[in-house]
Amino acid sequence: MKLPKTPARGTRDILPEEAKLRDEMMAIIMDTYRSYGFDRIETPAIEHLELLCQGEGGDNEKLVFKILKRGDKLKLDADNISPDDLVDMGLRYDLTVPLARYYSGHQNELPKVFKAIQTGPVWRAERPQKGRFRQFHQCDIDIIGEKSILAEIELLKASTEALEKMGFDNIQVRVNDRAILNHIAESAGVSSEQKSALFISLDKLDKLGEDGVKKDLITQGFSEETVSKVFDLISDENKDQIINDNVTKVLEALTELPGNMNVSFDPTLVRGMGYYTGPIFEFLIPDVGYALGGGGRYDEMIGKISGQSVAACGVSLGFERLVTLKLENLSENKSSAKTALITNLETDSLIDVLKLQNSLQTEKKTPISLFTRPKKLGKLLSDLQNHGFTGYVVFGENDNEIKEFS
Amino acid sequence: MKLPKTPARGTRDILPEEAKLRDEMMAIIMDTYRSYGFDRIETPAIEHLELLCQGEGGDNEKLVFKILKRGDKLKLDADNISPDDLVDMGLRYDLTVPLARYYSGHQNELPKVFKAIQTGPVWRAERPQKGRFRQFHQCDIDIIGEKSILAEIELLKASTEALEKMGFDNIQVRVNDRAILNHIAESAGVSSEQKSALFISLDKLDKLGEDGVKKDLITQGFSEETVSKVFDLISDENKDQIINDNVTKVLEALTELPGNMNVSFDPTLVRGMGYYTGPIFEFLIPDVGYALGGGGRYDEMIGKISGQSVAACGVSLGFERLVTLKLENLSENKSSAKTALITNLETDSLIDVLKLQNSLQTEKKTPISLFTRPKKLGKLLSDLQNHGFTGYVVFGENDNEIKEFS
Repeated sequence: MKLPKTPARGTRDILPEEAKLRDEMMAIIMDTYRSYGFDRIETPAIEHLELLCQGEGGDNEKLVFKILKRGDKLKLDADNISPDDLVDMGLRYDLTVPLARYYSGHQNELPKVFKAIQTGPVWRAERPQKGRFRQFHQCDIDIIGEKSILAEIELLKASTEALEKMGFDNIQVRVNDRAILNHIAESAGVSSEQKSALFISLDKLDKLGEDGVKKDLITQGFSEETVSKVFDLISDENKDQIINDNVTKVLEALTELPGNMNVSFDPTLVRGMGYYTGPIFEFLIPDVGYALGGGGRYDEMIGKISGQSVAACGVSLGFERLVTLKLENLSENKSSAKTALITNLETDSLIDVLKLQNSLQTEKKTPISLFTRPKKLGKLLSDLQNHGFTGYVVFGENDNEIKEFS
Repeated sequence: MKLPKTPARGTRDILPEEAKLRDEMMAIIMDTYRSYGFDRIETPAIEHLELLCQGEGGDNEKLVFKILKRGDKLKLDADNISPDDLVDMGLRYDLTVPLARYYSGHQNELPKVFKAIQTGPVWRAERPQKGRFRQFHQCDIDIIGEKSILAEIELLKASTEALEKMGFDNIQVRVNDRAILNHIAESAGVSSEQKSALFISLDKLDKLGEDGVKKDLITQGFSEETVSKVFDLISDENKDQIINDNVTKVLEALTELPGNMNVSFDPTLVRGMGYYTGPIFEFLIPDVGYALGGGGRYDEMIGKISGQSVAACGVSLGFERLVTLKLENLSENKSSAKTALITNLETDSLIDVLKLQNSLQTEKKTPISLFTRPKKLGKLLSDLQNHGFTGYVVFGENDNEIKEFS
């Protein structure tokens, strides 16, 4: 039997160089979030199917990887088997739905205002395509129990600071509010049933342009009058008319901070997920055609599980996108020191070799790694140099001094 | 519809206090392993079923969570459906099988001697019971491509150092060699087919005692002569006769290092997994009834996938067990500084509040987290104190100095 060497379809392996970068980036994110008092939590990758498919996840609910029942529970002899009879759990497609369950179950063990970090893999059974994978890492912070705009501001401050510390410059923050979107729809005479169609179309302004979206709306049956009213309301001249108090406060607070953050009101920002109820936001950098992260307020979602309404607001960084951007711009010469200690097991005193390893690790504060001396030393040395080693010691030679690769 | 608040059966949520401890412990492990030149890699949680069920995983292969096929690939209308027709992937049950696939697929991109760290969740569909979960974290290091005992020594040195740095004292390392086990079996006249039965029985010496194991072997059809020969060979007087060169070298090297590690030869150590081919080892501490980790050499496993035989040796730390031990011995008073900055949004200048947060974060190098001032300040303060905060500032009061909770 020939066994597979490639990862399962739509998933990927991560090589050492990328793993190192991921660890460095994740450490910056975690340190920044912790400096704002956020605490990390963990939920399992496997969740109840009824939780994953409750209706809050939009299209993601169609993309759940489902787990086959086991043992006696799996019944294949019935006449009419439906796929739902065969499965009892699924892999989480995001970290927000599990967070809502977690908070509902542990409310009494958590502070009234709870600031959570959650980071880990999520899975979606999408058709594999370039740059889109079926397992990817999410990185979320959420504030639960804070009704005021203080939550939005702290989330945006912490997450843009993390982006800056990772070396992303010129971050633009776009802010909108579901309340403003509703106001636009209502002022233009759009019925409640038609609202989401309007918002979904508006969300495509980046791609389709104004004319494209107008055409799209007309095709969907919106009247010319409604469409022109909508575009009148979101025009630059009228932005001051439709902006609300919450968005104004966010803009003021963040703009005046050191760093002069580029924060702006964008009445066309929609953000797909159905569960947002208030302010929503997105991070962009110039010349990159996709958002680096985003989030918003979702005051009704947790109540659906816990039975008690509770305020909630969150930001998710697009970790895979950030890593991809960094990898593209990674300079070659930034590898940190790493030394090979090469020993001839036949002739060297192994104990002395190990003691030298210890003392070099302590003195140099860099990795020192053991290798046996092969017949062709040069071959080993060039292999080491090709794989991130910056120098070597051949035990007993050169006074055991580190020789740097040139 | 009532949605579940508890995690799926056999899985668990991790609360902030434990997550913090896990992060601290993992950071020590990673720093130690990196100081020996190990590089982290990642493999996906989802793997090909044919890889997971190839025969190398022993009983774990029966415990794979299998993923239902999707869309057109799922065919339920056939006459004889078997469970295997319904699934196309599974969740990994360990990190070694995925590592073997990873190395086989990326060999040309990796150094000849490759030192890998892999850490992440694995899943096993075991019957849930106290302390045993269906998702748990593994933490492995492996050296691939090093035939000599240098691999075993560096793995043991790095992993016992990590255990010590996490605060585990009196670590005992038990070492054996599959070659010694084979020698015992052959010298006692045990046939190749009976070998595993002998080894599995020997592995129970801890639990059953000498008399129990003897009885167990006789019941299984081993002759009294064979059993007495086996126990003669593994008796303390004869240990020197059966120990081999590899084990001797490991004991010498590690015993003479600073730290005076407690390393001993244990001819009864077996370690379940079928794939070991050479030295095997296990970490224990007194008064704890289970191993904290272990590993060994498995020179044949990767070749089954890559087609090319390659030496390999690994150590796995029982991360969940280590966390459990630490949690049981956690002293109450070790929470690090964390300050709440409390603001009245109606009256305070939000910008000044944010600037104070910034400057306190920088000056004090501790987390500073924003909270709105409620009507009952005392209630907020006691909630904060109950959840790990060590002090607070009410903006504009007490010269904005931090007031420590007493």
